[in-house]
Amino acid sequence: MRAKIKVGILGATGTVGQRFIQLLEAHPWFEVAFLTGSDRSVGQPYGEVCRWKLPTSMPERVMKLKVLESAPGPKATIAFSGLGGEFAGQIEEDFARSGYAVISNASAHRMGADIPLLIPEINPEHLDLIKIQQEKRKFRGYIVTNPNCSAITLSLALAPLNKAFGIKSVAVSTMQAISGAGYPGVASLDILGNIIPNIGSGSEEEKIETETKKIFGRYLRGSIEPHSMIISAQVNRVPVVEGHTETVFINFKKKASISNICEAIRNYTSLPQKLKLPSAPEHPVILKDEEDRPQPRLDIDLQNGMATIVGRVRGCNLFDAKFVILGHNTIRGAAGAALLNAELLHSQGYF
Amino acid sequence: MRAKIKVGILGATGTVGQRFIQLLEAHPWFEVAFLTGSDRSVGQPYGEVCRWKLPTSMPERVMKLKVLESAPGPKATIAFSGLGGEFAGQIEEDFARSGYAVISNASAHRMGADIPLLIPEINPEHLDLIKIQQEKRKFRGYIVTNPNCSAITLSLALAPLNKAFGIKSVAVSTMQAISGAGYPGVASLDILGNIIPNIGSGSEEEKIETETKKIFGRYLRGSIEPHSMIISAQVNRVPVVEGHTETVFINFKKKASISNICEAIRNYTSLPQKLKLPSAPEHPVILKDEEDRPQPRLDIDLQNGMATIVGRVRGCNLFDAKFVILGHNTIRGAAGAALLNAELLHSQGYF
Amino acid sequence: MRAKIKVGILGATGTVGQRFIQLLEAHPWFEVAFLTGSDRSVGQPYGEVCRWKLPTSMPERVMKLKVLESAPGPKATIAFSGLGGEFAGQIEEDFARSGYAVISNASAHRMGADIPLLIPEINPEHLDLIKIQQEKRKFRGYIVTNPNCSAITLSLALAPLNKAFGIKSVAVSTMQAISGAGYPGVASLDILGNIIPNIGSGSEEEKIETETKKIFGRYLRGSIEPHSMIISAQVNRVPVVEGHTETVFINFKKKASISNICEAIRNYTSLPQKLKLPSAPEHPVILKDEEDRPQPRLDIDLQNGMATIVGRVRGCNLFDAKFVILGHNTIRGAAGAALLNAELLHSQGYF
Amino acid sequence: MRAKIKVGILGATGTVGQRFIQLLEAHPWFEVAFLTGSDRSVGQPYGEVCRWKLPTSMPERVMKLKVLESAPGPKATIAFSGLGGEFAGQIEEDFARSGYAVISNASAHRMGADIPLLIPEINPEHLDLIKIQQEKRKFRGYIVTNPNCSAITLSLALAPLNKAFGIKSVAVSTMQAISGAGYPGVASLDILGNIIPNIGSGSEEEKIETETKKIFGRYLRGSIEPHSMIISAQVNRVPVVEGHTETVFINFKKKASISNICEAIRNYTSLPQKLKLPSAPEHPVILKDEEDRPQPRLDIDLQNGMATIVGRVRGCNLFDAKFVILGHNTIRGAAGAALLNAELLHSQGYF
Repeated sequence: MRAKIKVGILGATGTVGQRFIQLLEAHPWFEVAFLTGSDRSVGQPYGEVCRWKLPTSMPERVMKLKVLESAPGPKATIAFSGLGGEFAGQIEEDFARSGYAVISNASAHRMGADIPLLIPEINPEHLDLIKIQQEKRKFRGYIVTNPNCSAITLSLALAPLNKAFGIKSVAVSTMQAISGAGYPGVASLDILGNIIPNIGSGSEEEKIETETKKIFGRYLRGSIEPHSMIISAQVNRVPVVEGHTETVFINFKKKASISNICEAIRNYTSLPQKLKLPSAPEHPVILKDEEDRPQPRLDIDLQNGMATIVGRVRGCNLFDAKFVILGHNTIRGAAGAALLNAELLHSQGYF
Repeated sequence: MRAKIKVGILGATGTVGQRFIQLLEAHPWFEVAFLTGSDRSVGQPYGEVCRWKLPTSMPERVMKLKVLESAPGPKATIAFSGLGGEFAGQIEEDFARSGYAVISNASAHRMGADIPLLIPEINPEHLDLIKIQQEKRKFRGYIVTNPNCSAITLSLALAPLNKAFGIKSVAVSTMQAISGAGYPGVASLDILGNIIPNIGSGSEEEKIETETKKIFGRYLRGSIEPHSMIISAQVNRVPVVEGHTETVFINFKKKASISNICEAIRNYTSLPQKLKLPSAPEHPVILKDEEDRPQPRLDIDLQNGMATIVGRVRGCNLFDAKFVILGHNTIRGAAGAALLNAELLHSQGYF
Repeated sequence: MRAKIKVGILGATGTVGQRFIQLLEAHPWFEVAFLTGSDRSVGQPYGEVCRWKLPTSMPERVMKLKVLESAPGPKATIAFSGLGGEFAGQIEEDFARSGYAVISNASAHRMGADIPLLIPEINPEHLDLIKIQQEKRKFRGYIVTNPNCSAITLSLALAPLNKAFGIKSVAVSTMQAISGAGYPGVASLDILGNIIPNIGSGSEEEKIETETKKIFGRYLRGSIEPHSMIISAQVNRVPVVEGHTETVFINFKKKASISNICEAIRNYTSLPQKLKLPSAPEHPVILKDEEDRPQPRLDIDLQNGMATIVGRVRGCNLFDAKFVILGHNTIRGAAGAALLNAELLHSQGYF
Repeated sequence: MRAKIKVGILGATGTVGQRFIQLLEAHPWFEVAFLTGSDRSVGQPYGEVCRWKLPTSMPERVMKLKVLESAPGPKATIAFSGLGGEFAGQIEEDFARSGYAVISNASAHRMGADIPLLIPEINPEHLDLIKIQQEKRKFRGYIVTNPNCSAITLSLALAPLNKAFGIKSVAVSTMQAISGAGYPGVASLDILGNIIPNIGSGSEEEKIETETKKIFGRYLRGSIEPHSMIISAQVNRVPVVEGHTETVFINFKKKASISNICEAIRNYTSLPQKLKLPSAPEHPVILKDEEDRPQPRLDIDLQNGMATIVGRVRGCNLFDAKFVILGHNTIRGAAGAALLNAELLHSQGYF
């Protein structure tokens, strides 16, 4: 039995950091070697400074790990980044420069021309950017990012459809869970029995619109040419704990009947499934037949939270089709996405 | 001081019936003369059989009124219909035949070719259908309907824009309150911390798509020619008590800048405002400037729940514009809409 | 490998019935052989008539089982009863008379003088009532019941304390989850953002007060002498999906310091733990140290939902101590309790 | 018509400050003359720095008022304090020393031996402490406080019962609304679909236990002798926006039948009612007869949020009686309480 690959978690006390710890607890390839946090928690045992908010118990193993500052140094191959805020970009660059494989959930570098915005099912060839990135930035390691939680949920649903019919345009309206805002995140006075027709940062819509085009972009001579699809998003916060629901109106380049669409979704499988990566869902896109599904409370844990669930695929007066999708925003939409990215990198010999 | 016009409420124990009673309590023109209910409650005092669910107290006046069966007979000019279910259509016809002005919130007759689907701000000329209806159906009275709660919220927002620019197409995604389903309505196990991507009956989307085209239709030689706009709707139930929120993508016939759109909304006023009808909102459409409004919990009572609130009017990659709207589904979306319809009829000499 | 014991589920389409199916899916001793339901569903495949409301998928195995009427006949040893309503008592008697071990979650027979109201940790000796029951009622089988969901949560917390100090009196105020009311159960209009200071049936408080005394009663010469403790309960419904929280004020017969109490809870273990019954929690009572726990959303799945979680044990101006408790109302408070009862019966050679 | 008395609001941007502004908008005796806030907002118009969270619109009048720092100076008679945190005590003393009548909702001074903890219905004679306070502290003005929101709700319910029967002991379990924690206050991730068995500060239970004894204390020779009643509280946060619900177990000094208790509640009236103070509820305690009331969503606005609503008065196995109560935590439990206090002071010639 080979020794496991050592990984660190940057921003380990936040909600994404906690998910990393939970998902890594029994991982076959990786083991947590270090945790970083804010000044407030540095030097203290993780179990004492982290306000653990997941319904499973905090793993014994990490409780006693001292929280470190977010700076290169600790012995590890991978640095998973659950960092937020203005310093994420700089810290991640420091780690990459020092030789770590930085697998980031932060938004800072996602749109960088030399940074893969990776969904293993969709654009594994974007990893070719790594060598360009290393040359250009003098990195011994590298940065690989995963998309925004709403963008990734949408992209997985679009993947089989883009492959089969080519996507021309998408109008999407989201209903996003509070866990997406971290902790303390959304004030209960703002969301209990209420809808907020925007997402805190204000740039969520732009992220969905631009990241999705990059995800489906073509890698050509060292850069990514964004996909031609036009996307328009409207985002909303809803009083749901986990699970982003999105209604989608869509036009295709080729003619696609409703049954063609359903068939494309049902049959979709891709590289992570073929490689049997440990965190890969058996089915990255699930189709529900019921007239009132998917629903966050009932369907969010399908495929361990690693798939997008599609429902109500039907005709449309205005577009070629419309449907509703659901994704687990803190698993496939955050920590689980990064973990699958790391698994793909490992399977491709990147460390 | 003139005697008030006597009105009855069909289906008075339901949630729409309760709103009728609440809104009529201190009405300057109308007074409640009779109440009807299901077999279970017939013959008993309203105060004993009605499970009152509004946060204001049940008016003393109606508590002792005996609930009657839903059949013509009681002395009154108007029969407001809060009926649901399969019998609404027949009962309303019986009342109209017997001479009552049936002002209905039920869906049974909305799409009838000779039935006004009335929003006083938008299509008062549709009332000319009444004489055709009376001739054709041998009614001594008549039936006038108001639209579905989501359709009326949308239509009020579209009204100034259709007038100014002509509407070509609309894609709308709704987040609808539980009160729209009546009582007991939506089971708490289905909606607490959850989203249901459909509305019970299953025909909600079609109602929005077809009713809106009729509302904006042109009255011509005895019939309504539906408006040419193409509408596509996706509907969702959310854990909100009152207030339907809708995200709207829109294309116009004429060019319209964002500031043109905002100006058209801000300046909009129409016939009920001019006539100063008692239930008419001073502003039937309100524009909010904040980046996270309208919100049901904060904005639902603006204009006494009789207006549509519009927010986040902005450009769009795919359509001419996009924005979010909010309407009070049991006031302007139901009982309040019917009441305003009755007021318009009265002001136009229909009784 | 021995063949599994065949079990049926009475009332299989309800929320308790669904939990039985979920918990029995991979049970080492038992396997589902038949399902019963209401007239509406009899003769149809379970997968088509059951509105499955659990976040795990319906087991493939039961999907195609035809739903039977609730009458003796099918070949099986155990009949788990998730029946509700007025007919539960009669149906359970019919099955017991015909030779089934009826393991019931219904309330009909709980307070019967010859019926064990069983919590395996607390009163396994009450099973001696079975032979009396069989003689008196001419049953070839028998009926064994588990307590009301709030009573069982409370009783587990009281068990170590009664053993150590003797309980004199308890005042308890509950905050009960909506899942306790079944489906459709509590209307969302009644509970969203609200508290209902009572539980539907109206007899919940009496159940807590009387069942708990029987649970801790002494089996003596063929009957149960209720425990002398005095209990007073106030019950409330809260907008929580799973998990009943209860605040407890308590007086003991013997002197008990706060640390004595905590120690008694921490060290508590009993017969099911010794027998290592498959569904037995390793720790039937868990003590939390944090100042704001237990919480339903975070702690409900501890010990697979089979334990009572106790927190905030502290002194009291009026009683000897006060604390807060939490139990999973549809697992240890219903189907899981019945399942553990069946496991105890099996281990004691009752079938 | 006399000029209105000028008042200031300390901590005007917080949730209590906002309620003060809302309740003072059309007050017959008082008018807002100045507003204070934190450093972040000083010097800016209130309308620009306040994140208004009430469903009624911000009054035009205050929008343009510049926010001042919380220091004496502005011309006004009363300083209403909605201050929180560690500096409240010092700031209030500064204002009192400078001659303002400080009417405070903060907890800092409530238990001061020379500070009235005033509920006008219960202890108007405690105002005699003012002259002692002024002498001892060299105040030209004075400080008068209102109790904690849970304590005031409880005290109003106890008032008629203490008068009629004398209260011996009370065990109370609360279910408190999120608005009691201010803004941003409770994180939605902590409370959505959840119960927190404690209130943030940790001293809420002690406040209920000690403040209530002081409220009902006897003023004797310059000091308050606390009432002899023994109180034990357990506090919980629930996902409700407005309205604290509390279950109460109670013992009396004199014998009291359930009908005696109900009669005492129904007939209760006191000084503010006699004086017809503008904010006084006609009935300070309301008795509901239904088996499932009071409920926050339906009953919270009774008596304009200025009364305690009592329901389910019934016998108890352990105490003399038990019942459930409801109070509006940000009106009678905070700003409305302070306002009524100011009105009593005015009516008694204190300014």
